[in-house]
Amino acid sequence: MIRVRFTGISAIIPASMKISELGEFGLIDLIDRVVGASKRTSSAWRRLKVGIGDDCAVWGGSGSAELATTDTLVQNVHFRPGIITWRELGWKSLAVNLSDIASMGGSPTYVLVSLSLPDSIEVNDIVDFYRGMMSLANRFGVAIAGGNIAQSSLIVITLTVMGTLGKGVKSPLLRSAAVPGDLIAVTGNPGLSAGGLRMLVTGMGLDAHTARLFRRAHNMPVPRVIEGLALRQVGLKCAIDVSDGLVGDLAHICQMSGVSAVIRLEKLPAHRRLKSVFPADYLELVLYGGEDYELLFTVKPSVVPLVKRTLKCPVTVIGEIVERGVDMVTVVDLTGKAVPHGLSGWEHFRSGAIVSGR
Amino acid sequence: MIRVRFTGISAIIPASMKISELGEFGLIDLIDRVVGASKRTSSAWRRLKVGIGDDCAVWGGSGSAELATTDTLVQNVHFRPGIITWRELGWKSLAVNLSDIASMGGSPTYVLVSLSLPDSIEVNDIVDFYRGMMSLANRFGVAIAGGNIAQSSLIVITLTVMGTLGKGVKSPLLRSAAVPGDLIAVTGNPGLSAGGLRMLVTGMGLDAHTARLFRRAHNMPVPRVIEGLALRQVGLKCAIDVSDGLVGDLAHICQMSGVSAVIRLEKLPAHRRLKSVFPADYLELVLYGGEDYELLFTVKPSVVPLVKRTLKCPVTVIGEIVERGVDMVTVVDLTGKAVPHGLSGWEHFRSGAIVSGR
Repeated sequence: MIRVRFTGISAIIPASMKISELGEFGLIDLIDRVVGASKRTSSAWRRLKVGIGDDCAVWGGSGSAELATTDTLVQNVHFRPGIITWRELGWKSLAVNLSDIASMGGSPTYVLVSLSLPDSIEVNDIVDFYRGMMSLANRFGVAIAGGNIAQSSLIVITLTVMGTLGKGVKSPLLRSAAVPGDLIAVTGNPGLSAGGLRMLVTGMGLDAHTARLFRRAHNMPVPRVIEGLALRQVGLKCAIDVSDGLVGDLAHICQMSGVSAVIRLEKLPAHRRLKSVFPADYLELVLYGGEDYELLFTVKPSVVPLVKRTLKCPVTVIGEIVERGVDMVTVVDLTGKAVPHGLSGWEHFRSGAIVSGR
Repeated sequence: MIRVRFTGISAIIPASMKISELGEFGLIDLIDRVVGASKRTSSAWRRLKVGIGDDCAVWGGSGSAELATTDTLVQNVHFRPGIITWRELGWKSLAVNLSDIASMGGSPTYVLVSLSLPDSIEVNDIVDFYRGMMSLANRFGVAIAGGNIAQSSLIVITLTVMGTLGKGVKSPLLRSAAVPGDLIAVTGNPGLSAGGLRMLVTGMGLDAHTARLFRRAHNMPVPRVIEGLALRQVGLKCAIDVSDGLVGDLAHICQMSGVSAVIRLEKLPAHRRLKSVFPADYLELVLYGGEDYELLFTVKPSVVPLVKRTLKCPVTVIGEIVERGVDMVTVVDLTGKAVPHGLSGWEHFRSGAIVSGR
């Protein structure tokens, strides 16, 4: 047994417990407690506003606030050759990190690129990877500032992106700022990415337009950087990006905010092509699919029209925040009856994995 | 074939060329050229002072300068179970990154920790990893600000450390600032880390004091953060940390500064215990061993006494910077005769690997 007793919270972990038994989120929570025992007297600790548990770390002094986030793509877990090209992989590696900056309402500035690569990788592929990353970086003015190359038997890509909240504006969008009475809204059309993954894995033959839509949604998502910035500027407080799936990420908001949430099935913005290709289970893809990199946020009812006018993308109200109840997230149908979370979604989320392995 | 022609430099890479054929440093050079084609008009690009090719990226505006660096440790390449404990691994993962901040004369502030881990790892081990990292972080006031956990079949640890040069002081120590006439100096006793690795790999039985000295040198190096800051404050311009080995890292300085270097064999600060344990080849460990995380720097002859008074660790002048010649680094004996670089050192370096695999 090891006993972890820090910051007033005590936990007992059996000595032989595997991280798979604790799960990804349990492990992050434990690490948060262990790190809580740090001697937090330095200037860096005092300036840290947001640490472990949100999409980005945030620190700052009187003049400005800085953001940083890191995300990793592992071969055969997060991507597979044949499903994604090197150019797409370069784009996506940056996109998933920019999305974390977007979800806090920040502006991305610099990226560091750490590549662990087998010797047998072709130089050509690495050039393609960088070109893919650069097309997205150029779009948002992000500078590729450095990185690291390491030898490895497995491809592991870790990017770290820095960003800023700008001078004078120090409050980022947080997971912990939802309050009962807020409406829940989402940008774009969640589910397309999971649809894309299913198409790519099963080799489904779709018409060119649909295939391109699905493929781009999964391999080349466009992070909602502009939209995140706009949400913060119109005064919203709470957002997250949809990486673990709509229900999973809403559960993160509920947990951090101490609230519960109701999603109304009939409000979900399922894309018409997702409906037509997957008529039997498109709702499952929308609710649990993940890797959409859309923004999920909460908003006072009176502010919804302003948000819809400001954002240049689809914005859909899908439910509301309520007082903390037994369940963190309840999905209800037209009659108001709770829809049971299917094993294929909810249980996957609970075990820390999702449809696509992320 | 792919043709890379950016920033005035043209290179032709055969389509099927593997990264092992190009080597680590060749690949970094190529990436630098590819990234050179970025649209560098954004504010982030304009504020970037040091990009790919030095120990840290450096950016800043009128008020201050920020640093960031990333380094990765890969299972079976950079560490092996049995050679290093989880607690030591936590320490070392942070140490190698802090050393990059130290080599630019910066103060480290925040770290993001990205762990790619097999499911079968024990929770206990991850707690130990964090505790090891925290002991070093607390020593230098570094705040553990966040990170990422990913599933992987191989342990891959990527840390990103941020730092600052402080207000008003904007010139970091650089690899590119050596000039002919400078003396070359090094802190501490390079070679101990490679000696430690050899002891651990071969299971040599040494007396407890020597075994502890060697083990700590390899598994728990203390980055020269205080010393790097002091070197910049006394006005030095050029430094690097010894990760690839004394000769290898001196070659990086020579390449970036457009100079050559002479190392005097009899000046090398070989630790007496290294000499007594490895009487036949201790000089090879000193010259090519790597992973010492000592600072290698250049200094005007008149400033040496000030540097020795200021730094609270051994400082040894080991040679001098000369005009660029045929060889980048020449090692000479007492008579001034060049000593040939042995295959076990120089060739390893040229292929981008070193004694220990880093």
